[in-house]
Amino acid sequence: LSGENRVLTMDTMNPNVKRVEYAVRGPIVQRAVQIERELKMGIKKPFTEVIRANIGDCHAMGQKPITFFRQVLALCSYPDLLEDGKFPEDAKSRARRILQACGGGSLGAYSTSQGIEMIRQDIARYIERRDGGITCDPDNIYLSTGASDAIVTMLKLLVSGEGMSRTGVMISIPQYPLYSATLAELGAVQISYYLDEDNCWSLDISELRRALQEAKKHCSPRALCIINPGNPTGQVQSRQCIEGVIRFAAAEKLFLMADEVYQDNVYADGCKFHSFKKVLFEMGLEYSEKVELASFHSTSKCYMGECGFRGGYMEVVNLDPEVKVQLTKLVSVRLCPPVPGQALLDVVVNPPQPDEPSYDTFIKVSTLAEKANMTQEILNQVPGIKCNPVQGAMYTFPRIHLPPKAILEAKEKEQTPDMFYCMKLLEETGICLVPGSGFGQRDGTYHFRMTILPPKEKLKIVLAKIKEFHQHFMAQYS
Amino acid sequence: LSGENRVLTMDTMNPNVKRVEYAVRGPIVQRAVQIERELKMGIKKPFTEVIRANIGDCHAMGQKPITFFRQVLALCSYPDLLEDGKFPEDAKSRARRILQACGGGSLGAYSTSQGIEMIRQDIARYIERRDGGITCDPDNIYLSTGASDAIVTMLKLLVSGEGMSRTGVMISIPQYPLYSATLAELGAVQISYYLDEDNCWSLDISELRRALQEAKKHCSPRALCIINPGNPTGQVQSRQCIEGVIRFAAAEKLFLMADEVYQDNVYADGCKFHSFKKVLFEMGLEYSEKVELASFHSTSKCYMGECGFRGGYMEVVNLDPEVKVQLTKLVSVRLCPPVPGQALLDVVVNPPQPDEPSYDTFIKVSTLAEKANMTQEILNQVPGIKCNPVQGAMYTFPRIHLPPKAILEAKEKEQTPDMFYCMKLLEETGICLVPGSGFGQRDGTYHFRMTILPPKEKLKIVLAKIKEFHQHFMAQYS
Repeated sequence: LSGENRVLTMDTMNPNVKRVEYAVRGPIVQRAVQIERELKMGIKKPFTEVIRANIGDCHAMGQKPITFFRQVLALCSYPDLLEDGKFPEDAKSRARRILQACGGGSLGAYSTSQGIEMIRQDIARYIERRDGGITCDPDNIYLSTGASDAIVTMLKLLVSGEGMSRTGVMISIPQYPLYSATLAELGAVQISYYLDEDNCWSLDISELRRALQEAKKHCSPRALCIINPGNPTGQVQSRQCIEGVIRFAAAEKLFLMADEVYQDNVYADGCKFHSFKKVLFEMGLEYSEKVELASFHSTSKCYMGECGFRGGYMEVVNLDPEVKVQLTKLVSVRLCPPVPGQALLDVVVNPPQPDEPSYDTFIKVSTLAEKANMTQEILNQVPGIKCNPVQGAMYTFPRIHLPPKAILEAKEKEQTPDMFYCMKLLEETGICLVPGSGFGQRDGTYHFRMTILPPKEKLKIVLAKIKEFHQHFMAQYS
Repeated sequence: LSGENRVLTMDTMNPNVKRVEYAVRGPIVQRAVQIERELKMGIKKPFTEVIRANIGDCHAMGQKPITFFRQVLALCSYPDLLEDGKFPEDAKSRARRILQACGGGSLGAYSTSQGIEMIRQDIARYIERRDGGITCDPDNIYLSTGASDAIVTMLKLLVSGEGMSRTGVMISIPQYPLYSATLAELGAVQISYYLDEDNCWSLDISELRRALQEAKKHCSPRALCIINPGNPTGQVQSRQCIEGVIRFAAAEKLFLMADEVYQDNVYADGCKFHSFKKVLFEMGLEYSEKVELASFHSTSKCYMGECGFRGGYMEVVNLDPEVKVQLTKLVSVRLCPPVPGQALLDVVVNPPQPDEPSYDTFIKVSTLAEKANMTQEILNQVPGIKCNPVQGAMYTFPRIHLPPKAILEAKEKEQTPDMFYCMKLLEETGICLVPGSGFGQRDGTYHFRMTILPPKEKLKIVLAKIKEFHQHFMAQYS
């Protein structure tokens, strides 16, 4: 079948799809898959396994699921187990309560499109506890298929206009590439503001202002996206910074989108997670009744790391009631988020209490703080690698200094220099990272994103291998 | 907060979203939810419960999940149960095999974006068995979040151009409103072809031709969507008809999208499901190497009816290899379909075999055939209701004759006449149906869609109530 005779070709395809890029699962990961196949076929390599430090996939990196959560999911999946004496009563009561809220008492029924009402109520109470009692209305909660789904839905609502009046959306650079990919798909204008690498990837309001002023010349800026704690950069924003962002959004009439999926992943001393919602409400009526906000959360990160269930939700604040009707209509077309993910979310926001049997064995302990420190320490020992503290989330985004000879060779191979570096690292060590170019970075700087998720002993080996590789690389190309 | 001060209002919102309509969960269902609340509050009604015959939600209508599937899901969710003697060995071996294919042996890890490779292989073998051995390449399978997700993704790829060259997509009228909603959202042109109500909702190639010729005057037709068995119309297409459609698509250079989610829901004597893939390949190289096809399937319908898990897949045939790379890239942005839904799909395509312990108790028996007959018989007894045989799927779409006085009163209330009718039915009987206008119908005709899913005894009552209501209604308005 020759290309010309096809209906759907690169020439006829949606041009916005062509512009979509998503480096976290890009060419380097495809090569990693090939290498794994080659290893299986017995092809000799200087390593015996591929280590995927490219994606925040906790369970794939050996983290065990939380027993209590999985007991409840098993009970919900196969309710005959409710008669089984081996399951603790608190797991059973959670499961019964969830099943009662499901159509026909089954995870297999569709839920309402916004998500099961009881679960939205539980989430609202969870948010109220997190935010020191600030009210949360369950009607403002929308469950979703992972946080990504809700982020895309909100962006979809926000995008309109043509030419000069086309919607512009501010995103940080470096950013999580879901944002740039979705803006490309929707044909919206990406407005890049740079995080300050020299100040631990902090957000500088004057940089927001610069980016906005420039953008106003060619589009209509309407939303500001923040990722806190940061992905890929691992910083945790101060309360003062968040207040500044909110003031800026209010003054410039920007819709705030707060990606807070790493809200429980904060490690550094002196750092604390402040939700945009809480700060907004504590800034007084001038802001709390004015600024439109959507905040996103997920079951995929934090201590549970249950990515595969695709559980997530957003809370909308100050959304126009008519727009809310439209939002509800829009999500109804896709019927409902996966119900097992909704059930999981319900247990996450409603964990065992001190007077319940599973409380003592319910363990949220994480070694991530330790691994965050170790990563930063070891990488900073390598000449030519500079790494900010990993204050939160589960990534480090170190800067790598690449010699001109390497940059030249990359150019010859039509690769970005950091892709060239990461590809070489993969071929020589089996370690799979994502080049900084996939997230965006200041011109002439190079980075990679690496997760800190491998088990401690393995992470040590990974870091040692990167160190050795980098020294080799520098020697080879200088 | 006054509307004018908001960023996101009806005036600034994405205008395509405004045009989206999805009647299956529209105003009538919202009123049903209100009525349920009113009943709970003790408000007296002429009925004691709302019966939701508006959506194909089997478990919500009392259908029990298949034990074997749920055992495997429980085992996958909480693998400690693999040590439990109460679970049959075949369920355990399925669960072990699925877990081995998951990152870190956990449903909580992300899968590859296209879906777990082993599961795609199992699906490919399942399709080969269905299609009498015609080859299926697992690399052509994409798992999805329900079938809806895959349908939207394919449409997304297909839509491009502006003005006269804007992509047009042919959809049947009546149709499942996911199609019209998605085309509205994407700003594509909907090309309506009418099914032949007088011939049991069959598809007439000359009607395809008429619709296409007309559309060519104002857009660029590029795809043809078929739902077989039909939703909302319940017809099953003959092999001859499918051949005609394929010949038409080949001649007119249209990309075929075959929505085959009801492939196991065929009831009428003499009716048989023919997959587009099989017919295409049996028509010889001229077609099998030429026509581009995407076929969709799901765990939500058929005998399992597991809607809540949002499991689904599509098979693409003759897709341009470069476009396939773009498709894979596009789905990677959303990371992966829900892994529990993938696991469920694997057991659906890989059920207990005769030599396995669960074979004898694995029951696929369905009462839908009986209910399809009963529905048609009883409704056709009512003067003013005319109902085609329900050959497949799980809906009837009877035509209702409404008197001019009723049409006038509907107009005064700014409702479509069939919405007026269904709303009244809901208020008086608690039965929730969807007006035909939500699916499209020939001007001046009126219908409703009703599922045949309620348990037999309840369905009898529903049908009797509709009969009584219709007689009343006619008396009142004639």
